[in-house]
Amino acid sequence: MFNTLIRISYDGTNYSGFQIQANAPTVQGELERALGVIYKQEIRIIGAGRTDAGVHALGQAASYFAPFRVAVENLPQAINGLLPSDIVVKGAEEVPEDFHARFSAERKAYSYTLDRAIYPRVMKRLYSLHLPGQLDLDAMRIAAELLTGTHDFEAFQASGSNVANTKRTLYSIDLIEKQYDQVLSLYYEGSGFLYRMVRLITGTLIRVGKGKLEADQVEAALLGINPSAVGPTVPAHGLCLENVFYRYE
Amino acid sequence: MFNTLIRISYDGTNYSGFQIQANAPTVQGELERALGVIYKQEIRIIGAGRTDAGVHALGQAASYFAPFRVAVENLPQAINGLLPSDIVVKGAEEVPEDFHARFSAERKAYSYTLDRAIYPRVMKRLYSLHLPGQLDLDAMRIAAELLTGTHDFEAFQASGSNVANTKRTLYSIDLIEKQYDQVLSLYYEGSGFLYRMVRLITGTLIRVGKGKLEADQVEAALLGINPSAVGPTVPAHGLCLENVFYRYE
Repeated sequence: MFNTLIRISYDGTNYSGFQIQANAPTVQGELERALGVIYKQEIRIIGAGRTDAGVHALGQAASYFAPFRVAVENLPQAINGLLPSDIVVKGAEEVPEDFHARFSAERKAYSYTLDRAIYPRVMKRLYSLHLPGQLDLDAMRIAAELLTGTHDFEAFQASGSNVANTKRTLYSIDLIEKQYDQVLSLYYEGSGFLYRMVRLITGTLIRVGKGKLEADQVEAALLGINPSAVGPTVPAHGLCLENVFYRYE
Repeated sequence: MFNTLIRISYDGTNYSGFQIQANAPTVQGELERALGVIYKQEIRIIGAGRTDAGVHALGQAASYFAPFRVAVENLPQAINGLLPSDIVVKGAEEVPEDFHARFSAERKAYSYTLDRAIYPRVMKRLYSLHLPGQLDLDAMRIAAELLTGTHDFEAFQASGSNVANTKRTLYSIDLIEKQYDQVLSLYYEGSGFLYRMVRLITGTLIRVGKGKLEADQVEAALLGINPSAVGPTVPAHGLCLENVFYRYE
């Protein structure tokens, strides 16, 4: 058995998320179907993380045990030939037997994209949240700075998750303006993210940017004493899993 | 009656082109439906040019006679509220009575986008042609230079058109590399374009870039003595009507 790591990009628009479900199109379902054709048997993959319905990925990762060796340099093209055009495998490599796409992940990066043009740009509409108008980026950066570091992020998770440990390290939140300031990208890197944490933090930072929330209220939220400062959860389609980093690299 | 010019962007993926047709979704059909709601009567618009099924636009233009005045600064938002999300009106202005979106157009700009990444980028797949591999941009630029200027472009039109005069002026063809050379954009400006002319020229230039056609064969094609040098017609989804320029501006 050959433990294999694949790197996957997808347009999440038409999927009910990454994780396989009965009777709903999922990225995992499409990948396992394609791998099943290649290996002529059922293959189960382990995703680095679940992404919600509508969330995109440029650097999702998944691992699986291959029953026989296919040259990794040929693997992406072989899998892509069996996938719909909105899922593209961008790389494959053999990894140590004890590698696990989820547990071996050391760091993840997400982006949230805001379309800042007055009228929404049609070719960005599936991949960004349209948000024209004034935003105080300095205030957003101050609030973002307060959130970075190692904290208990319990207040920044959506209900429906039941992880025991809600402590995470946010290495950075960068606000990057692109294309003549018409796009604002919020780029997050962290040790891991709680359920909907990026979307909740993004919604919170947008409220700060609009002057509807003070940075110190965000800090209070982090301490669990001001839950109303958290959110709202911004829509899924602006979110993209940019990368998953592994220790062994 | 108030002659009104609107500027329109659209994702052409789900439309059978700009021009209205019975029993097929068209951009013109959607616009006329929305305008009919606003003006409470049937409105016919004149498009600056037809775009084929699947072709996109960032700067399409259309004019129509409004039966009463709606403040042009409010018009885009009003129309957009009645349009599907893949069509967005970006501007409106009142124009002289003798203005005609098609006949008054002095110049048009089109882009054709190539995704040069090894594996197709999922979020560009609807708006670019995936074309990895070697391309000799110098050779393409030489051939492009031969095509610019005022010529009879009869050889560079698809059958099915019946314009009397096939003389056009191509002001420029610029090959622009973007995003770390992973995108190649061919940007065309001309007095007007024959049916499928941009897609035929793009296909021809790609063959030059691949070393399958010499620049002087392109020149011979222009003189009508080498029709096999023309094309192929590249797919619609890489093409975008970028702008329509008017004299009165």
